[in-house]
Amino acid sequence: MASSFSPEKSRVPPAIESPVPPVSKFMIGLCQLSVTADKERNIAHARLAIEEAAEKGAKLVVLPEIWNSPYSNDSFPVYAEDIDAGADSSPSTTMLSEVACSLKITIVGGSIPERSGDKLYNTCCVFGTDGKLKAKHRKIHLFDINIPGKIVFEESKTLTAGGTPTVVDTDVGRIGIGAHLLCYPGAFNMTSGPLHWELLQRARAVDNQLYVATCSPARDAGSEYVAWGHSTLVGPFGEVLATTEHDEAIIISEIDYSLLGPRRTNLPLQKQLRGDLYSLVDLQRLNSQ
Amino acid sequence: MASSFSPEKSRVPPAIESPVPPVSKFMIGLCQLSVTADKERNIAHARLAIEEAAEKGAKLVVLPEIWNSPYSNDSFPVYAEDIDAGADSSPSTTMLSEVACSLKITIVGGSIPERSGDKLYNTCCVFGTDGKLKAKHRKIHLFDINIPGKIVFEESKTLTAGGTPTVVDTDVGRIGIGAHLLCYPGAFNMTSGPLHWELLQRARAVDNQLYVATCSPARDAGSEYVAWGHSTLVGPFGEVLATTEHDEAIIISEIDYSLLGPRRTNLPLQKQLRGDLYSLVDLQRLNSQ
Repeated sequence: MASSFSPEKSRVPPAIESPVPPVSKFMIGLCQLSVTADKERNIAHARLAIEEAAEKGAKLVVLPEIWNSPYSNDSFPVYAEDIDAGADSSPSTTMLSEVACSLKITIVGGSIPERSGDKLYNTCCVFGTDGKLKAKHRKIHLFDINIPGKIVFEESKTLTAGGTPTVVDTDVGRIGIGAHLLCYPGAFNMTSGPLHWELLQRARAVDNQLYVATCSPARDAGSEYVAWGHSTLVGPFGEVLATTEHDEAIIISEIDYSLLGPRRTNLPLQKQLRGDLYSLVDLQRLNSQ
Repeated sequence: MASSFSPEKSRVPPAIESPVPPVSKFMIGLCQLSVTADKERNIAHARLAIEEAAEKGAKLVVLPEIWNSPYSNDSFPVYAEDIDAGADSSPSTTMLSEVACSLKITIVGGSIPERSGDKLYNTCCVFGTDGKLKAKHRKIHLFDINIPGKIVFEESKTLTAGGTPTVVDTDVGRIGIGAHLLCYPGAFNMTSGPLHWELLQRARAVDNQLYVATCSPARDAGSEYVAWGHSTLVGPFGEVLATTEHDEAIIISEIDYSLLGPRRTNLPLQKQLRGDLYSLVDLQRLNSQ
């Protein structure tokens, strides 16, 4: 192949090399939870699901997007917690920290509405096996949709977008972007769910040749925003490894990082990037250098 | 939404605005052709299929990847034509030009092996309704795959990659990238076909919110490289509008550009690009300015 391709220049700054994952295989648990208007119940209910997943062998447990509150612009300010202000101000993340530590598991805590100063964010906290907060990701691309007669929802009405992509090293590998595993706690709906939910997670798995784990709230046909469900684990060829329907469920499935190397050898996409023709620039990293 | 997002900066140079398409609706014909070792037969056979598609109302006809030659590294040098050297040197494109002019249709002529000097390319010619060559696209990302026990194929062994993306204005709209319609003449195989063929075309349609038309050779179980088939038209929400199995077939289906505006309003993806965080740089356009 022509050496003038410069695939190494297709990302500016260069993609960060992923380290060798600290484990090769492990079990992941995706908790597709029912969510009610009762926050205390939601927190206790999530704790039980995490405990059940861990008992079944999960070393990494993923919760859905907005699992402690109804998914609605009216609810976000009411259910929001000040995560940075400490334990009493955020019972949801306090529970996650406690259960991660006591069960010695990693938790990608889906997301909850976060209050910080006068702003609200859709925020995902990652806790390590020692119960410490390893990363806090504020949703960067807010979800706005307007399909007349089908669904109208604008997160941007009440929420502020985060400004930083998140990549975090955990006991079960690097999670995030340019990583071993993409975790996407997401509450798709009955319109874009059947259209795009499985499609987009499979596409991102194939494009990046890694595992994609999605976790949705269970469907509640009576809620204002009806979630699609169908939490799923996708492998690095875009293959659906485990999935479920829309009811509450816990998916336990194996992630085998040793497949990443062969898959990237099988289809050498990274070598085919055309750094002579295009670059994807990470402005944040560029400006921080 | 925060104005600091700078979505307009997410592409450098900025994405070229698509013009209003010269037609709103039209019929597209995808000719999934059987391909043999007999080049003369392949050319005559393609002509018949184009004529049939036009008779059924198609204003744009798309042929498969490598439709005049078996898809193999041994065949490419033997079947290659010198497109730039004129009519006698390229009977395949001469036929396309004649039939485009006589039927007053636009043809995306799939691809044929092209010889240019001492190099071979996988080249797609686009002919306008006047029979003139409007664009010649040399495949930029060559297809290399190596899945032991399943499939090994390396286009890069014999072919040279092209160096220029192609966007062409035709009587049926702008075809290419940042356009109204992506045309992908592709010969997927029995391994990556079931895995990725429909997935990737639907993903690109959703990501870019436009029509994607793919055209494969028909499957020939006896050939060295067995094509997957399943030529397909996908709409701007990723919906499969028309498809077929693996046998020879002509798909006739409607493209309605008037859906592009509403779809882009329904899911305002372009407004959500984070030009503050990342840029996709078109180095070719940047360097030519």
